Amino acid sequence: MDLVVGTMFKELAGAAEGLRALLERCGPVTRSEAVHLAAARGRVLSEDLESPVNLPAFNRAAMDGYAVRAADTRGASPLAPVYLKVDDEAGEGRCVPVRTGMAAPPGADAVLMMEDSLLRGEELEATAEVHPYRNIARVGEDVALGETVLKEGHRLRPPDIALLASLGLTNAKVYERPKVAIIPTGGELVPLFSDQRPLPGQAREANGLICEMYAEIWGGSSRKTQIVEDDAGLIKDAISENLDADLILISGGTSVGEEDYAPPIIEEMGELLVHGVRITPAKPTALGFIDETPVICLPGYPVAALAALYIFARPLITMMAHRTDLPRAVPAKLAGKIVSRPGYLTFARVGLKGGVATPIMTTGAGILSSVARAEGYVLVSEEVEGREKGEMVEVNLIE
Amino acid sequence: MDLVVGTMFKELAGAAEGLRALLERCGPVTRSEAVHLAAARGRVLSEDLESPVNLPAFNRAAMDGYAVRAADTRGASPLAPVYLKVDDEAGEGRCVPVRTGMAAPPGADAVLMMEDSLLRGEELEATAEVHPYRNIARVGEDVALGETVLKEGHRLRPPDIALLASLGLTNAKVYERPKVAIIPTGGELVPLFSDQRPLPGQAREANGLICEMYAEIWGGSSRKTQIVEDDAGLIKDAISENLDADLILISGGTSVGEEDYAPPIIEEMGELLVHGVRITPAKPTALGFIDETPVICLPGYPVAALAALYIFARPLITMMAHRTDLPRAVPAKLAGKIVSRPGYLTFARVGLKGGVATPIMTTGAGILSSVARAEGYVLVSEEVEGREKGEMVEVNLIE
Repeated sequence: MDLVVGTMFKELAGAAEGLRALLERCGPVTRSEAVHLAAARGRVLSEDLESPVNLPAFNRAAMDGYAVRAADTRGASPLAPVYLKVDDEAGEGRCVPVRTGMAAPPGADAVLMMEDSLLRGEELEATAEVHPYRNIARVGEDVALGETVLKEGHRLRPPDIALLASLGLTNAKVYERPKVAIIPTGGELVPLFSDQRPLPGQAREANGLICEMYAEIWGGSSRKTQIVEDDAGLIKDAISENLDADLILISGGTSVGEEDYAPPIIEEMGELLVHGVRITPAKPTALGFIDETPVICLPGYPVAALAALYIFARPLITMMAHRTDLPRAVPAKLAGKIVSRPGYLTFARVGLKGGVATPIMTTGAGILSSVARAEGYVLVSEEVEGREKGEMVEVNLIE
Repeated sequence: MDLVVGTMFKELAGAAEGLRALLERCGPVTRSEAVHLAAARGRVLSEDLESPVNLPAFNRAAMDGYAVRAADTRGASPLAPVYLKVDDEAGEGRCVPVRTGMAAPPGADAVLMMEDSLLRGEELEATAEVHPYRNIARVGEDVALGETVLKEGHRLRPPDIALLASLGLTNAKVYERPKVAIIPTGGELVPLFSDQRPLPGQAREANGLICEMYAEIWGGSSRKTQIVEDDAGLIKDAISENLDADLILISGGTSVGEEDYAPPIIEEMGELLVHGVRITPAKPTALGFIDETPVICLPGYPVAALAALYIFARPLITMMAHRTDLPRAVPAKLAGKIVSRPGYLTFARVGLKGGVATPIMTTGAGILSSVARAEGYVLVSEEVEGREKGEMVEVNLIE
């Protein structure tokens, strides 16, 4: 690909082409780590898991009643009961009271339900016949020793974790989460949650926080550098210090002005594949690799950054994180027209209620408040000029 | 309702009836708390949020270019350019270079794009006309001072949090999460993750962990007591100590044997509404209230416990937690028959792949491994006797 330009977007990449350029050189994370089961929810197994034990480890009564030798009950009925001696041990002609969950005593091979028996002093009147292993959970019935209980790639949900813990396990080997390093750049930015108030021309750095949270939602682990000034040397240093990451997100510094440093730096340090994509409103996005680490430069405008995150970072991070469980788009009917620019993929915010999607009108990519009012977004493809009122569209939920 | 019985389920409640009995006496949590925005993801606002500032707080250049007085560019075109003096301050006949995001200097009311101008020494050749406020984001354009940016009931997603942080906020007032107290009972249980190995007749206590994790997933905050022995006094103590909770889940001790303590205790301490429901495999479930706190007694069998959690605890906890965002059922085609008992709501586990749901055959409610193989479950209603192969069903995903 040879789309790279100096300070102007001479040739823009398509969104799909840009994404493909990233995906085809990346893969799911293969590093793994052992995590305690209590902290393993949502993690993905990196190996098949075989049971170290039988579950149950003993023949377990599955009903409240009397453990018996099935053969002793042969022919028993309300009209022709058989009588068994109630005892502490099982054996011919004897029965042992058991409750659900208890071990069936040696010698007993079935449990006669309470409802099918009547206690008469030290004798039990059995009014039903039971077959061998009736009302008994046999050794290994739930899980047999050595059986594969969960496979590599399985995402751990509460009952899975309970199952593993029931087998006596404490840890599970899972894939590491992809490491996402976030580098916010821009001399005009002041940190969030600080006493520093932005002066005219300044803004609070919020895109880095958005990146951090989404990296986690999509299955990654995130770390964020301090805000880096508009200085090529400082930006290079920040990148160099984070090349161990599985993905670097650089926020800001991607447009075509003289102070936009990130794309030329990627070109210098590695390979700039794309600078400028036909996405409204994420045109200034840049994509590249430094060594084997993919780098996405996100536009500074928050809505544009969000669009670039959803279109490029989400598929990349979820793929790296072995995540296949994230919610998919839902169908909805458009309550109004969406205007879009042909040739550009448009990230159109919509409200969503009862299967009806309402386009949210906004004046620009800077308008973060338009996202607060949006439940989701519709991607309008390059081939069409907007979508008409009444059309069915796929709404991707804003997570 | 008068369904309560001594030690036998004389009359069973329907699942919907049982759930209604819980829901109609409970409501969303109204207590609120201030949380730091960095920790507020997924929380639900307890009040409308008005902006304390204008965003932007200044007229902001929305493009790289030159801040001008729009009037000065009137009639400008490539054939009839107008000339402006490049200066540090704006004013008649003057322009000031600006970059996206910078404050437009006082006196300038528009930005002329770089593309529409040519720098000739200290003069700018303007080749296009701009209208007032063209390429300028005006004070308060994104969010105006005093404007309601997010409403009570809104669940905070990353861009919402970024918006609030951009307004200079650090905390948000959100609803407290419903407190779910979990009391595992049973003398046969040994703690998870301990060196203690279960002896015959014993089992590791895993249901409490399932409850804990689901309470969190569904929007609650959970706490779990130690395992409580089968002793009425100890169980009463554990309940009394947790009556400040919004919901008490008691695991085990709900069947009809002599050692099943929980339902009679609820009756003694408060009101037992339901003991025994027509749900396969969650029949022994009991429902009641002590003071104003709802209590759900879950069966000891793990799959039965899971069914009762999904059918009773999930709607209750999500309602209390103001959660409306959880995934809904997805349609799928049955790859095989599901057998069910008429008159009973059946919790049938299914695998799910590419829109096809495959029933998972199992022999009993104790088989936790059947859940590990299930992506979801189908609820087969009381009115039907199973579902046929090829039928369309709604699959609820196991979260």
